[in-house]
Amino acid sequence: MKMFQPYLCRRCSIRSPVLGRMLSRYAMNGGDGPHSYAQNSSYQKGVVDVAKPIIEEEISRKLDIKHLSSTFRIADFGCSTGHNSCAAMQIITEAIRRRFEIEGLISQLPDFYVFFNDKVTNDFNTLFNSLPRERLYGAAGVPGSFHGRLLPKATLDFAYSSCSLNWLSEVPKAVLDNTSPAWNQGKIHYLGARREVCEEYANQYAKDIESFLDSRAEELVPGGLMALLVPAVPASWDPNSAYTTTTEIYLFGSCFMDMAKAGRFSEAKGHNREE
Amino acid sequence: MKMFQPYLCRRCSIRSPVLGRMLSRYAMNGGDGPHSYAQNSSYQKGVVDVAKPIIEEEISRKLDIKHLSSTFRIADFGCSTGHNSCAAMQIITEAIRRRFEIEGLISQLPDFYVFFNDKVTNDFNTLFNSLPRERLYGAAGVPGSFHGRLLPKATLDFAYSSCSLNWLSEVPKAVLDNTSPAWNQGKIHYLGARREVCEEYANQYAKDIESFLDSRAEELVPGGLMALLVPAVPASWDPNSAYTTTTEIYLFGSCFMDMAKAGRFSEAKGHNREE
Repeated sequence: MKMFQPYLCRRCSIRSPVLGRMLSRYAMNGGDGPHSYAQNSSYQKGVVDVAKPIIEEEISRKLDIKHLSSTFRIADFGCSTGHNSCAAMQIITEAIRRRFEIEGLISQLPDFYVFFNDKVTNDFNTLFNSLPRERLYGAAGVPGSFHGRLLPKATLDFAYSSCSLNWLSEVPKAVLDNTSPAWNQGKIHYLGARREVCEEYANQYAKDIESFLDSRAEELVPGGLMALLVPAVPASWDPNSAYTTTTEIYLFGSCFMDMAKAGRFSEAKGHNREE
Repeated sequence: MKMFQPYLCRRCSIRSPVLGRMLSRYAMNGGDGPHSYAQNSSYQKGVVDVAKPIIEEEISRKLDIKHLSSTFRIADFGCSTGHNSCAAMQIITEAIRRRFEIEGLISQLPDFYVFFNDKVTNDFNTLFNSLPRERLYGAAGVPGSFHGRLLPKATLDFAYSSCSLNWLSEVPKAVLDNTSPAWNQGKIHYLGARREVCEEYANQYAKDIESFLDSRAEELVPGGLMALLVPAVPASWDPNSAYTTTTEIYLFGSCFMDMAKAGRFSEAKGHNREE
């Protein structure tokens, strides 16, 4: 029987099947309790706030509103439980609505439809229950890895992703291999690591971003827009004098290694972070 | 600000706001434990099995495969946690694939995309985790009442619903009103009830099915198909000599009234079943 590659589940290529399944299944903490992503993502909300004027300007300058279909489809790749995602969807739909209003075309405003995507283990129940009761858009949840195809071909008008593309699909194999020159002993991240380690992470990122972009290229309509908010390390960053996202990765890595030394889990597990 | 009626949440019109919210939020039991719908829906699976040859024949006779777009969209309205729904989607997609094969057009087989719909309180997490790893279709979950619009206009090729349209959107007000001639004291169903009671239920069903069909009429493409499997009471049914779906409703009603008499809950609550 013919199976359609786009929708076949990606198989993790890490040698250990158990580890492979684990890594491919991580999602943010669900629910809305004290340890939930919903209660612990104010930093990510800040990213959306900072991006707001940039997104609005790009919609104002680049969206060709005279050649849209009757439904304008938006997707958020890596939506988690939705709190920040809904805020972003509000920004995008409102900016488009304003464009139509300013140009005197409000009667031609398309219907909006939003696809909320995250891994299959994401807490979509919390997402659906946190959707605003009154909103400008229809909504669907799409489970699966954004490193593969998720939506029908050439139907997506606006691809959005925030604080998600920094997560790799898998830990580079060589950094886990104590016989490799890229073995990243005692660390969970590439910052401050040897050149070989950095290259392994960079290669994995290149593979992942390529599969993401290839998939979106199939899904986007001609003239579609894409807004990708990706946490990154400033080129001029001095870890000794300034705080940035990766500072906390250092801190976590150090904690994991202390826990490993105390026998709470194996050091090898401590290495297996994907970011 | 303009809001799009299709995607505004329906507000239950029952007088008590608390009761209204309760009734509009019922979904089948989630998870896969001993009391879950997944473990207690073999009857509903039987309905799918019985309908299989009818669906296959209708697809064979009525689907105009020469005028389809590159994506064939199917929706299941009232999918619950997916076990039976996935079986039905397999039947539909496989029957269409076979049509293309028989007519020598297999190279033109469209991509399939399935929208799984149920109420916002449905356990979509279990649904997404029970999707077959290898399947012929892309998948999305759509939360919301199927008595309103759920999908973009004129995009749906096949609307399917099984064992769901028998659930009313609300209990008819008059059957709860002890001053009304349609008060249905001591019963949770219209079978064996007075004419006034039956009329109230019939009117509510007419309203509900109309809103369902109106919504699907907007969503379906011209030439789209619809398969609705609706449990019903045979016209010639004699409750004293034959078992059918509603026999168990009698049984439940009787149990509820016994529990009400034992003070486990008020008799009024016992009446408030929607089927």
